[in-house]
Amino acid sequence: SLSISSSVMAKSKFEYVRNFEADDTCLRNCYIVVRLDGRNFHKFAEQHKFIKPNDNRALGLLTRSAVSVMEELEDIVIAYGQSDEFSFVFKRTTNWFKRRASKLMTHVASQFSSSYVFYWKEFFGDQPLLYPPGFDGRVVLYPTNRNLRDYLSWRQADCHINNLYNTVFWTLVQRGGLTTAQAEERLKVKDSNTHRSKHDETVTKRMKLPNEEEKDVNVTRSRKRVQAYHCDIIGEQFWEEHPGILEDDS
Amino acid sequence: SLSISSSVMAKSKFEYVRNFEADDTCLRNCYIVVRLDGRNFHKFAEQHKFIKPNDNRALGLLTRSAVSVMEELEDIVIAYGQSDEFSFVFKRTTNWFKRRASKLMTHVASQFSSSYVFYWKEFFGDQPLLYPPGFDGRVVLYPTNRNLRDYLSWRQADCHINNLYNTVFWTLVQRGGLTTAQAEERLKVKDSNTHRSKHDETVTKRMKLPNEEEKDVNVTRSRKRVQAYHCDIIGEQFWEEHPGILEDDS
Amino acid sequence: SLSISSSVMAKSKFEYVRNFEADDTCLRNCYIVVRLDGRNFHKFAEQHKFIKPNDNRALGLLTRSAVSVMEELEDIVIAYGQSDEFSFVFKRTTNWFKRRASKLMTHVASQFSSSYVFYWKEFFGDQPLLYPPGFDGRVVLYPTNRNLRDYLSWRQADCHINNLYNTVFWTLVQRGGLTTAQAEERLKVKDSNTHRSKHDETVTKRMKLPNEEEKDVNVTRSRKRVQAYHCDIIGEQFWEEHPGILEDDS
Amino acid sequence: SLSISSSVMAKSKFEYVRNFEADDTCLRNCYIVVRLDGRNFHKFAEQHKFIKPNDNRALGLLTRSAVSVMEELEDIVIAYGQSDEFSFVFKRTTNWFKRRASKLMTHVASQFSSSYVFYWKEFFGDQPLLYPPGFDGRVVLYPTNRNLRDYLSWRQADCHINNLYNTVFWTLVQRGGLTTAQAEERLKVKDSNTHRSKHDETVTKRMKLPNEEEKDVNVTRSRKRVQAYHCDIIGEQFWEEHPGILEDDS
Repeated sequence: SLSISSSVMAKSKFEYVRNFEADDTCLRNCYIVVRLDGRNFHKFAEQHKFIKPNDNRALGLLTRSAVSVMEELEDIVIAYGQSDEFSFVFKRTTNWFKRRASKLMTHVASQFSSSYVFYWKEFFGDQPLLYPPGFDGRVVLYPTNRNLRDYLSWRQADCHINNLYNTVFWTLVQRGGLTTAQAEERLKVKDSNTHRSKHDETVTKRMKLPNEEEKDVNVTRSRKRVQAYHCDIIGEQFWEEHPGILEDDS
Repeated sequence: SLSISSSVMAKSKFEYVRNFEADDTCLRNCYIVVRLDGRNFHKFAEQHKFIKPNDNRALGLLTRSAVSVMEELEDIVIAYGQSDEFSFVFKRTTNWFKRRASKLMTHVASQFSSSYVFYWKEFFGDQPLLYPPGFDGRVVLYPTNRNLRDYLSWRQADCHINNLYNTVFWTLVQRGGLTTAQAEERLKVKDSNTHRSKHDETVTKRMKLPNEEEKDVNVTRSRKRVQAYHCDIIGEQFWEEHPGILEDDS
Repeated sequence: SLSISSSVMAKSKFEYVRNFEADDTCLRNCYIVVRLDGRNFHKFAEQHKFIKPNDNRALGLLTRSAVSVMEELEDIVIAYGQSDEFSFVFKRTTNWFKRRASKLMTHVASQFSSSYVFYWKEFFGDQPLLYPPGFDGRVVLYPTNRNLRDYLSWRQADCHINNLYNTVFWTLVQRGGLTTAQAEERLKVKDSNTHRSKHDETVTKRMKLPNEEEKDVNVTRSRKRVQAYHCDIIGEQFWEEHPGILEDDS
Repeated sequence: SLSISSSVMAKSKFEYVRNFEADDTCLRNCYIVVRLDGRNFHKFAEQHKFIKPNDNRALGLLTRSAVSVMEELEDIVIAYGQSDEFSFVFKRTTNWFKRRASKLMTHVASQFSSSYVFYWKEFFGDQPLLYPPGFDGRVVLYPTNRNLRDYLSWRQADCHINNLYNTVFWTLVQRGGLTTAQAEERLKVKDSNTHRSKHDETVTKRMKLPNEEEKDVNVTRSRKRVQAYHCDIIGEQFWEEHPGILEDDS
């Protein structure tokens, strides 16, 4: 039962705590990339019986959530996703949230996560979502077009590697009759004197991915419409066909 | 149709882009506060017909989402919420995500948002959620117990003011027969030679909030259980009854 | 009278305080600019009887100190100075001090300041330096060649304005017989309904700077030699003649 | 020969580059420590024939430079130095330079460096300073009194170790007739299966430092006067005798 005037006085006494907020404005004229990663999605995929190696429902839901983010945040010019991660690229000159890193990444993480639950039924039908999933995010700045393209190429090259590995792995399990432990062992290089395990290239070198396999996605705008593609973004062709994404470097 | 070895080579060529990530580790021995704010919740509340001035279903869902965050992130020692905002306090010595600000705030924003959609039905029953809501967040550090308590007191004093104002406003509308525009006008001080509008204290000074009104909430842990309270956190009593929240200042 | 072993133990107990240091690595692939500004140099110039409007001894000493910095820090590709300020540009790809902002700016500030005292006699002869002067500094990042050139142009345009103003001001005082207060008044625009005072353009518009006047300086490297110039850096010519300063933007 | 009006126009076109400056305000209510370290002082000490292990002229000059910094920056409450390093502690509540880290550390580095050259003659007489020395610096924040005291204790424990080691080392060289290489070898522990070399504790354990040896210094204020001390700052006594340095923690 406080009166307004005493509350206003109380509030003004405490208000100094606002000055503890730090300014995290992103450097101007750099591309702002927000990348999200699923929390414990290995377990999440198992519990929700994702099809191996690639579950089109899961990729569809991931893409739908990214589209939802892009509809909300109009200065995102391209987004790229695979597995349980998605990267969103804000244009160099964006002034959304005054370029405050914390606002940008939390809004993206929040909109993506609420959309993921909201659209679940559209992709998984009657199969229930068992619990609300979590994603974490980060912000990275890229000063030039080359740096940005190399970032996206890095993510897609990573996708190719994971995908090729997973395809072989699940082929060994599903058609070769190996246990998952045996398949993992089979794909390890014997001589492991390095910390990172290497894959058995004699197996994987001959593998080709079926062309029709959809395993990653990038989302762009075209005349204000948001669209999803499955295509190579490492080479020149995509960038020549989408001249509106990159801004002039100088 | 890339082979793994060429993909690995491609990836290593692009991998330098990792070095553009900045380190945003939070200063040690400070309380880490993550505050979330609803995006356009004024409109969201209208579209979903929230009861004015306080909708217990909405506060219940907000609280349920905060509990979900706290169950996931065990180093949060207290959370305080009202209206469309929620603050989460990590203990001083937390090493969750190595104290990386971006990870902490995006994970909180993500978990809160997915939970908000996930638990919607528990509080709103058959009333449909029309679209996935968004929240933005920020991180603020507080070096001392006094600073942290003043932060929480600031948020609760803000809640008192908003609540008192809203209660009067909606009483004028719902029982006094005023339009919302008239009520707004009525609560403005005539002489507005300052930039901020002042409230008509002759009206609000006499107002008392009904005691049973639940309008804010704080969530704490007790023997590992997460619990929600509606009580004063500005005075000493709450802190004496919950000695485990604050750590030694020295 | 402590033994080493007890000292080592004591030290290891306190060593946790190292973790409070923040990482302030500069974003990769950006030009790093360190700008120094003299502390209270208006007073310093008066006390040391600097000739008005431009004292060639002072500019010479400023330049000598900048050269000393550039000899020490080899990744500085150009430096520009005027009055009591100097800007130093590190190449985009520098890895000096692992690009740690604090190290870069303090080393520049330190080397410049010790040099200023060390070389004082070379420029001021028997006139004594009355006390050790201070400079403060800052770091600014520029992602593109255009941004960097605009920064340098901004500083030189600022120099032109100050210089033109000062030349008129001191002409009014030294040849026109006005007091400094009268000259200041004379150069103010009457109608001051803006916050910033404007200069009387009817006077200054007709002023031309004598061409031989040296009032600013830029220092570059050429075949590893550091050299000082007095020339325009806003137009294209300088940059065409020094192609080694800017790196490829892409 | 530019007119002011065209220069003002030119400048305003370039002025956008100011927005690239980042805000590096230090978190409120934390102690701000600026630590300086000499650049290549091992070589500097040799070239200027510093007496081993401790040169009182060098420590005197270091102290004089620190006093000069403290006279200029009145919110520094204590400074501690040894060898070629000096730490300056700003009071928790300082608002000097609006708590901007870059300004604070560069001003300290600059004032210290210009003072070092300016006061050289007072301590080294006719022995010439061969070149202007450089120092680099950093800023570290400490939220509590305990953290700050542990920082200072860490530096003094480090000083004890270095000093004890150096005293033994130079005793072996100056009185024991060993070369510096032999002395270094003698003080290494044989079994070096750790990365860090350990000292021969059988030698150093018995060593006691002569009490009159001045090897480090701390500088405080007392009734606005700046004073230098040689004493223990790890224990309680110093802090009880100087209650004005630490502010209330809460």
